[in-house]
Amino acid sequence: MTSLARRHCQPVKGAALSGDALPPLLAQVPAWAVVDDALQRRFTFDDFAATMSFVNAVAWLAQREDHHPDLHLGWGWCNVRWTTHSVGGLSMNDFICAAQVDALQP
Amino acid sequence: MTSLARRHCQPVKGAALSGDALPPLLAQVPAWAVVDDALQRRFTFDDFAATMSFVNAVAWLAQREDHHPDLHLGWGWCNVRWTTHSVGGLSMNDFICAAQVDALQP
Repeated sequence: MTSLARRHCQPVKGAALSGDALPPLLAQVPAWAVVDDALQRRFTFDDFAATMSFVNAVAWLAQREDHHPDLHLGWGWCNVRWTTHSVGGLSMNDFICAAQVDALQP
Repeated sequence: MTSLARRHCQPVKGAALSGDALPPLLAQVPAWAVVDDALQRRFTFDDFAATMSFVNAVAWLAQREDHHPDLHLGWGWCNVRWTTHSVGGLSMNDFICAAQVDALQP
């Protein structure tokens, strides 16, 4: 199977992912947690400039994939949250983008 | 009095602003609300790219003033939140930065 980080978002059909579909996907992005129907991870940085550099990299891949996260950030931290509004929960696209964000890390 | 947007942040001493000090300052940034000891405003945009351009402009002025907001953003929106941790609430710096963010608007 192609690693999640090398895949790209596709138009989503059908229902949100749930149940047995989730554990094998979460195993590929183990630093992320499912919180309120979204995939969420907190990142920390040494200063505000590094935080913003990360935020802009995430924004770049979000534009490329035409899938956009919620970002909550301050001095030295950023919470990234992926969900798929069209299915009212998680889709494969959220896992793909989470893996792409992980791949930004050193 | 020099308009808030033309002033710059200064080292903060003493207690958080409260009581009678707040209304005249809020009158200068009327689109902002005091929420949980912070000065908060929601901005909306036509798309994600415009949202990110705004976020980067706010980040620039935050670095210039060495005073950093919390930013919560998604596709087409950004909540900006200023508070001064060293006083446990609002300082003049928060009002100055709020006015500077207002001045970014068309």
